[in-house]
Amino acid sequence: MSEFLYGHWAIMETLRAGRRQCEQLVITETVEEKGIVAEIIGVANERGVKVKKVQRRIIDDLAQGANHQNMALRASPYPYVEVPQVLELGKTRGEKPFILLLDLLKDPQNVGVLMRVADAVGIHGVILQDRRGVDVTPAVVNASSGAVEHLQIVRVTNLVQTMRDLKEQDVWMVGLDIGPNVPPIDKTDLNMSIGIVLGSEGEGMRRLVRDTCDLLLALPMRGAVASLNVATVGSVALYAAWQARGWQGWAHA
Amino acid sequence: MSEFLYGHWAIMETLRAGRRQCEQLVITETVEEKGIVAEIIGVANERGVKVKKVQRRIIDDLAQGANHQNMALRASPYPYVEVPQVLELGKTRGEKPFILLLDLLKDPQNVGVLMRVADAVGIHGVILQDRRGVDVTPAVVNASSGAVEHLQIVRVTNLVQTMRDLKEQDVWMVGLDIGPNVPPIDKTDLNMSIGIVLGSEGEGMRRLVRDTCDLLLALPMRGAVASLNVATVGSVALYAAWQARGWQGWAHA
Repeated sequence: MSEFLYGHWAIMETLRAGRRQCEQLVITETVEEKGIVAEIIGVANERGVKVKKVQRRIIDDLAQGANHQNMALRASPYPYVEVPQVLELGKTRGEKPFILLLDLLKDPQNVGVLMRVADAVGIHGVILQDRRGVDVTPAVVNASSGAVEHLQIVRVTNLVQTMRDLKEQDVWMVGLDIGPNVPPIDKTDLNMSIGIVLGSEGEGMRRLVRDTCDLLLALPMRGAVASLNVATVGSVALYAAWQARGWQGWAHA
Repeated sequence: MSEFLYGHWAIMETLRAGRRQCEQLVITETVEEKGIVAEIIGVANERGVKVKKVQRRIIDDLAQGANHQNMALRASPYPYVEVPQVLELGKTRGEKPFILLLDLLKDPQNVGVLMRVADAVGIHGVILQDRRGVDVTPAVVNASSGAVEHLQIVRVTNLVQTMRDLKEQDVWMVGLDIGPNVPPIDKTDLNMSIGIVLGSEGEGMRRLVRDTCDLLLALPMRGAVASLNVATVGSVALYAAWQARGWQGWAHA
């Protein structure tokens, strides 16, 4: 079953990554073929993807009312991978495992932002709890500016079991939590084989997920509004971990 | 002239902060008075703010189509402050200046996220370039979960002149930039009198703003999608600076 991706960068990166079968690019008949639009059409042509002009309301329908930026790409489903491929990428790069685990996040925007940061810091893979959390939907691809198309993403039916398996392979599970008794994020040297675990908006990690973590760390807060969006917490944590690795893999490191 | 704020936390924090004159709280006639809704009505009653039930479409109009969560608060305009008050707060707290400067950011969502983080790390004030950038609109208040109601925000007509004035008072202007020749954010000890400068989405800082910075730092990136949202960059930078200050002011530090 194919799906319709939308948004300039979602479509551009899907074409560039070349991991999905792309069947057709539809663009609104009124859009001007210049700038990024022309670039996307150019890449579609190179990849042998048909381009068709249609009425705007057709794309409105395909994107289900989202801000599609005048185009939609019919493509095969997102190519999920399995955990061994995530560990393999670390080995290939000669890096200690660097993994992100998301426990039942609900908001495609948050998940998209986190995926974009995960790509920026060189995460080897992102592991999602299947069924009750967010999948890699077109909304997530769009919110990630297409970054998910270059990432390795795994869906698992039992996140706790996957965490246990990873622990057996000496990957430390580090949960981001809140509360007065949780040490701040700089209390631990994060330069280790690591899986960073984030819980859902509002509720945080499920109890068993939290209990399965090797350690819990918090992002300090001192303001009047004593909470932060999970995408913000995760972004700061991912950068803290990559900084501890000495910006490993950065072209200018 | 009064305006209509919307969204649970925007309204709650406006009532709690008590810095605006709040004239009336309108809620949809169908909403159940429990949970956060009941709490907000309770705080409105304490503050002597009239509560009125109206048809949903009236609030739809007042919120101009935004996701208002069934309520709107008629309140006086946002109470901006001036630069001396920002510096004064630092002195009162016994802290070196800790300021955020935004050069022509356009997206209320980004500005709201940054304000929420600014509140979380204890920024003394946020300085905005007037007219061509985002103001503290109801959309920004909502995107910040109400955090702006507790922050000191300044609008200036000439950001470069304000930067020069702050430099004369020994506040270092640190711009977040991109590019291969910009050192990474951990190259400098950020535990100093500091103003963190962020440029607009897409274009970054204007040339004169960049040239007025004492130093430029970058957030490294190694991914396929070589860009990050300004709200992400700013969040990581604000936390890096607060961490360098030893989480000063944190209740558990």
